Amino acid sequence: MKLAVVGGGSTYTPELIDGFARLRDTLPIEELVLVDPAADRLELVSGLARRIFAKQDHAGKITTTTDIDAGVADADAVLLQLRVGGQAARNQDETWPLECGCVGQETTGAGGLAKALRTVPVVLDIAERVRRTNPDAWIIDFTNPVGIVTRALLQAGHKAVGLCNVAIGFQRKFARLLEVEPGQVHLDHVGLNHLSWELGVRLGGPDGENVLPKLLAEHGDAIADDLRMPRKLVDRLGVVPSYYLRYFYAHDEVVKELGTKPSRAAEVAAMEKELLEMYGDPALDEKPELLAKRGGAFYSEAAVDLAASLLGDGGSPVQVVNTYNNGTLPFLPDDAVIEVQARVGRDGATPLAVPALDPLYAGLIANVTAYEDLALEAALRGGRDRVFKALLAHPLIGQYDYAEGLTDRLIAHNREHLAWA
Amino acid sequence: MKLAVVGGGSTYTPELIDGFARLRDTLPIEELVLVDPAADRLELVSGLARRIFAKQDHAGKITTTTDIDAGVADADAVLLQLRVGGQAARNQDETWPLECGCVGQETTGAGGLAKALRTVPVVLDIAERVRRTNPDAWIIDFTNPVGIVTRALLQAGHKAVGLCNVAIGFQRKFARLLEVEPGQVHLDHVGLNHLSWELGVRLGGPDGENVLPKLLAEHGDAIADDLRMPRKLVDRLGVVPSYYLRYFYAHDEVVKELGTKPSRAAEVAAMEKELLEMYGDPALDEKPELLAKRGGAFYSEAAVDLAASLLGDGGSPVQVVNTYNNGTLPFLPDDAVIEVQARVGRDGATPLAVPALDPLYAGLIANVTAYEDLALEAALRGGRDRVFKALLAHPLIGQYDYAEGLTDRLIAHNREHLAWA
Amino acid sequence: MKLAVVGGGSTYTPELIDGFARLRDTLPIEELVLVDPAADRLELVSGLARRIFAKQDHAGKITTTTDIDAGVADADAVLLQLRVGGQAARNQDETWPLECGCVGQETTGAGGLAKALRTVPVVLDIAERVRRTNPDAWIIDFTNPVGIVTRALLQAGHKAVGLCNVAIGFQRKFARLLEVEPGQVHLDHVGLNHLSWELGVRLGGPDGENVLPKLLAEHGDAIADDLRMPRKLVDRLGVVPSYYLRYFYAHDEVVKELGTKPSRAAEVAAMEKELLEMYGDPALDEKPELLAKRGGAFYSEAAVDLAASLLGDGGSPVQVVNTYNNGTLPFLPDDAVIEVQARVGRDGATPLAVPALDPLYAGLIANVTAYEDLALEAALRGGRDRVFKALLAHPLIGQYDYAEGLTDRLIAHNREHLAWA
Amino acid sequence: MKLAVVGGGSTYTPELIDGFARLRDTLPIEELVLVDPAADRLELVSGLARRIFAKQDHAGKITTTTDIDAGVADADAVLLQLRVGGQAARNQDETWPLECGCVGQETTGAGGLAKALRTVPVVLDIAERVRRTNPDAWIIDFTNPVGIVTRALLQAGHKAVGLCNVAIGFQRKFARLLEVEPGQVHLDHVGLNHLSWELGVRLGGPDGENVLPKLLAEHGDAIADDLRMPRKLVDRLGVVPSYYLRYFYAHDEVVKELGTKPSRAAEVAAMEKELLEMYGDPALDEKPELLAKRGGAFYSEAAVDLAASLLGDGGSPVQVVNTYNNGTLPFLPDDAVIEVQARVGRDGATPLAVPALDPLYAGLIANVTAYEDLALEAALRGGRDRVFKALLAHPLIGQYDYAEGLTDRLIAHNREHLAWA
Repeated sequence: MKLAVVGGGSTYTPELIDGFARLRDTLPIEELVLVDPAADRLELVSGLARRIFAKQDHAGKITTTTDIDAGVADADAVLLQLRVGGQAARNQDETWPLECGCVGQETTGAGGLAKALRTVPVVLDIAERVRRTNPDAWIIDFTNPVGIVTRALLQAGHKAVGLCNVAIGFQRKFARLLEVEPGQVHLDHVGLNHLSWELGVRLGGPDGENVLPKLLAEHGDAIADDLRMPRKLVDRLGVVPSYYLRYFYAHDEVVKELGTKPSRAAEVAAMEKELLEMYGDPALDEKPELLAKRGGAFYSEAAVDLAASLLGDGGSPVQVVNTYNNGTLPFLPDDAVIEVQARVGRDGATPLAVPALDPLYAGLIANVTAYEDLALEAALRGGRDRVFKALLAHPLIGQYDYAEGLTDRLIAHNREHLAWA
Repeated sequence: MKLAVVGGGSTYTPELIDGFARLRDTLPIEELVLVDPAADRLELVSGLARRIFAKQDHAGKITTTTDIDAGVADADAVLLQLRVGGQAARNQDETWPLECGCVGQETTGAGGLAKALRTVPVVLDIAERVRRTNPDAWIIDFTNPVGIVTRALLQAGHKAVGLCNVAIGFQRKFARLLEVEPGQVHLDHVGLNHLSWELGVRLGGPDGENVLPKLLAEHGDAIADDLRMPRKLVDRLGVVPSYYLRYFYAHDEVVKELGTKPSRAAEVAAMEKELLEMYGDPALDEKPELLAKRGGAFYSEAAVDLAASLLGDGGSPVQVVNTYNNGTLPFLPDDAVIEVQARVGRDGATPLAVPALDPLYAGLIANVTAYEDLALEAALRGGRDRVFKALLAHPLIGQYDYAEGLTDRLIAHNREHLAWA
Repeated sequence: MKLAVVGGGSTYTPELIDGFARLRDTLPIEELVLVDPAADRLELVSGLARRIFAKQDHAGKITTTTDIDAGVADADAVLLQLRVGGQAARNQDETWPLECGCVGQETTGAGGLAKALRTVPVVLDIAERVRRTNPDAWIIDFTNPVGIVTRALLQAGHKAVGLCNVAIGFQRKFARLLEVEPGQVHLDHVGLNHLSWELGVRLGGPDGENVLPKLLAEHGDAIADDLRMPRKLVDRLGVVPSYYLRYFYAHDEVVKELGTKPSRAAEVAAMEKELLEMYGDPALDEKPELLAKRGGAFYSEAAVDLAASLLGDGGSPVQVVNTYNNGTLPFLPDDAVIEVQARVGRDGATPLAVPALDPLYAGLIANVTAYEDLALEAALRGGRDRVFKALLAHPLIGQYDYAEGLTDRLIAHNREHLAWA
Repeated sequence: MKLAVVGGGSTYTPELIDGFARLRDTLPIEELVLVDPAADRLELVSGLARRIFAKQDHAGKITTTTDIDAGVADADAVLLQLRVGGQAARNQDETWPLECGCVGQETTGAGGLAKALRTVPVVLDIAERVRRTNPDAWIIDFTNPVGIVTRALLQAGHKAVGLCNVAIGFQRKFARLLEVEPGQVHLDHVGLNHLSWELGVRLGGPDGENVLPKLLAEHGDAIADDLRMPRKLVDRLGVVPSYYLRYFYAHDEVVKELGTKPSRAAEVAAMEKELLEMYGDPALDEKPELLAKRGGAFYSEAAVDLAASLLGDGGSPVQVVNTYNNGTLPFLPDDAVIEVQARVGRDGATPLAVPALDPLYAGLIANVTAYEDLALEAALRGGRDRVFKALLAHPLIGQYDYAEGLTDRLIAHNREHLAWA
């Protein structure tokens, strides 16, 4: 079994490697190719990766290449974890929207649109190369905005599944609070990527007893604190919104907060510098503590589980993934990409049925899906008008002059990444 | 033919009377009953109404009653134009939402929810009395929020159609600009009540040539000025949004404007005082000029046209009304109430087919429909939680602390009108 | 010694009575006249007042009258604690400014201006009656806005001193934290009423050691929490701002908070109702617990101390009061009213010298003094233009369209209290 | 007579040269030295400068140097018109404050503080070199923020006067409206640099008839339009605020506008590129039209007039300049720098007396002066705390979390220009 990781020079990679090593029984990797245009980072990261495999007696081979075609040839699965424009572009995404009084963030709102516009063409080009050299390979997309990128891949006919760590994060946290094994916890996770709610928490299987009311009664404060939302809001909803809903439910508070603190990108850039220095230390043979602060907790577990199910029988039968709606949420088009529990196997992902959704969530999901539709149009076909339209459609923007101002800024700050600009 | 007007003591009524007089060939009224709990207003208004009929040699009889059951007995149609709580309640609706930085308005946003909560139970009670005394009568609802009120009526099994003057206003304006007869202008009017767009302007019939591009090219400035929106926005959209979209596309600007100007209710209250004084003048025998400023232009034309079609063959075959979706907009539930062109006849209204809608509009319509769903729930079943939920679902609110603050204020300012509060 | 309390029917009065009883050695009152136009409140309050005196064996006589002239005749001092328009007007002051995005508050900003406009003419009329019947009496003003009201009194030639409980509150709190007797704590309290900073905290006397740095080092968190300001802000300043500075240093946060919570007036109105019921209980012979939540802590101590110094030798020689600047702050006019430490005796209050003030405080004090100057003009002479000008001058308003909108609202909500409107 | 222009490579310089040529009778320049570190710009600009002199038969010699000491040796006056960090730094000043919801602008607010911090040390270093080589030379400062820079120069004991074109701009505009010669118009110009009001407009001399009421009555709309302020505001004030007061009187509107439009710096940068290309054309021998859009109208007239008075008898005896207060505005410290009419001669500038100022203006002037005081402290002595304090003191900021957020951004964006950062 051969896996390729595009964006393998990321400082995240050791997290992934650590997971591959620990979970070798689930996913028996024989060769792992790290693909990245940045040769220097590749060297640092792959060095540590090999030392981690070695320390844990993993026999898998780790190779590197800056050549995408070579890297993905013969791979059974290709993991996409790239960042077009790097932390510098992210810093922009987090900053200029604030000038218009809008959320500056790399996946939600105007910043997320910028990231989509930069990323979709690059990912489609990579997927095309994968298909050319290796038409059977599965593409697992971690690259944000996962919903839009996965939709782009699926619409272009690629074998793709989108993956995010929000659901697995909740699974692990709830398991800890409930004092059960993580595998026992099944989530009624419904929505879009970064716009989801845990409507139920079930024990034993997707049809197990719903312990969410009990969980909220006993641990509501801890859960709300973690989300940085008022306990009262969580109680009123009676379900657990994802962290990203804070951009909606506390929009103005978040804008003010973002506008008066340093950007997350700046923090991450500093952390990355430190991490890369550590990775260069030949004595280091495990993922460093600091990596935990970088985000992406449990990414490797989720990735191993998904790859194992797509490539064989090792993974969990039901997982939370991003895939085509196909009638699961009846108020959305079939070709919308949603994030829900799905049966995953060699033939891909099929959503489990979802009961009728509360309008409180359905309305917002429909609105954001409309935005994603227009965002994908803008990413595929370019043009100032399409950018404007997507921004005007976003429920966190929605106003004419903000949409105009954001369009100008998005283009000005991303010109080098936008072929049409 | 007998018509009853509930809320007949309104200062609007002379507008309606004037239309009934002018359009007697379309709608040959034999008896008109003005029903209103305010006997003094009834007397002033009916006096003028009779003088208008007399001056125009209309033979129809005008009677008045404060007793709803007596008023609607034997009526062929019942027009609802009431305002629970009067201009004082409207003034509240326009004021307290501003304290939370939200739009203060009697139909859109938190103020509109307050009006829905006050109005739905009263309207359902009236409709029930109509049905009891007169099960064949049609109910024509002008009372805002028309979308929610009409849905309440339809869900309770009443024979009802909702009516608003936004579409007829555009029809008349476009006819003037195009220098054609109003009846020649057909609008591709799509959306919800007070959340609609004119997607096309057709000459001669619902399938006539679409002259909207030409109209915008030649009269774009006048159209945009009238909407108080930038010309550039109208050009970018390529369609004509209703005036109420300004609450969305220019939300913050509107909030600031409302927050620094006197309320519309205060203006209207002053105007009403003046109008009632005029109505008392026995020499007055036509609707006064001032009434035009009161709003409601072309209401009587629209009402006559609708009643004529529901009760006979005199009206236009296709009219813009509020009725059940029934698959017209596939992304909405069948029992959502939408505002579109419909064939209207003795058996009610059936929407014309609507081509696939741009996500820019569909997303917002879906989101507001979700709000309306929850708003109706709150109006029917009451309770602080339901009010909160509807407010949180509204795309112009959507934030936790605003929804909390608005819920408190809505209840505090409307306690006397809310049985459960 | 005879004292008159104008506004003696206030629910605050038992606080004052309790102080008079406890501190009878400092201020040996022989007769106390409670003056109030509300006879029913007077009866309830005076009943309890007499029971408190009786329980504590105070021989002083308590009388009541609704006739201001009779009440103040022969009084050695007249305490003003009235509220023109009551809690209803206060509720307005706290509400309508929020519609324009400005702080709604009864002393600071637009609400404070409304209170000044309602109050100054009433207070001047009372003072005139005092002077006519009793030219030697001292007037002690507790009535907000104390700075503007005191300036009005002094400019009209009255014998007046303004008093607020902010300074005594800090004195008691710091004494508790420092574990010393309150009398040991002297504050370098500088600024205007409700716009002041404690620049130093001295032990033993006005020239004692400054223990503020130590106090902040040891109790900074408790002090900041009490002010609801970030500890870091207090540390950066190195001094303790009054609670009212939060309206400036956290303006937008406060507006949002006020806009999403019930008004303080509504809370107080509820509390007053409950208090008055308690006062009617003939078994009650001490101030109830609940009164502490009503605000006004240590008011009676401050009042007793000030009256004792103005009328004899019993009070502290140096107290924080509101009086003419007379060069104390060289950047303000001599006839500005400031709130600082002053020597107080039978001939009134003379400020202690204040060292050169940090521009960070001086700039704001100068700006608010300019507002107070224009506010007093508006209170004395009336007119929409003067109201507008005062609002435009206020540093928390300062913008044209807010000032216009606030002016309209101030006048609309206070018409019955403004002779010229 | 020899003049040196530091920052002589600016695209503004041809404006100055044109003025020197036209006004040679007033200011008979024999040698003009253009000093600038950018040799390439110097060459382009000086080429055009020489062609302008040649075309107009001006016999003065124009030399260039990149060496400041050589440039200012023997100069009778040194004009400062430099921009530390260029348009790129300006672009920053106009951008990052918006992230915190504050005005982004190169002289007012946080951006202006950044410019002050970058500029003061550079200007003081230049002034020191001037004094060393040429102790009798006058320094004329055009460099913004003129008020703070001039105060820095005066406090360091330099012979300096600050100059801005706001007053001369009004003089010319009013002269045109009044149809008189500009020299006939004298302005009661009072305030600080970029915070001033024209309190009167007098004909014939500083004590001539005040025609401002007449001017407003006849041309109020044109004047208000030019300022982009509502006519009603100008009428209410009865005086003409400078354009920069819009940042105060319409703060939120301006922030929104700036946040949704491209920055002025970006516009100017594009214009400068075009201008420099024009300047390189050997056929060009006059200032191009485009330069008028660059701003700085009438700068050369003002500069010639001021230099002529400082160096001889050719200039107007009374001019609007920036100089020490010295009791002119009694509520400001003597060493505050104000912008008012002053008698100017070989011994410098002495303000004319100013009548008692309306508190509406005095309060704001005092507050901004306090900010300037702290800003100069921060510029001279550095440190995060001083930057924070100046920002907190600014009446357009004033809030704790904004001041913190702005401090971080100011330092992050200007690190290379701040020795202490």
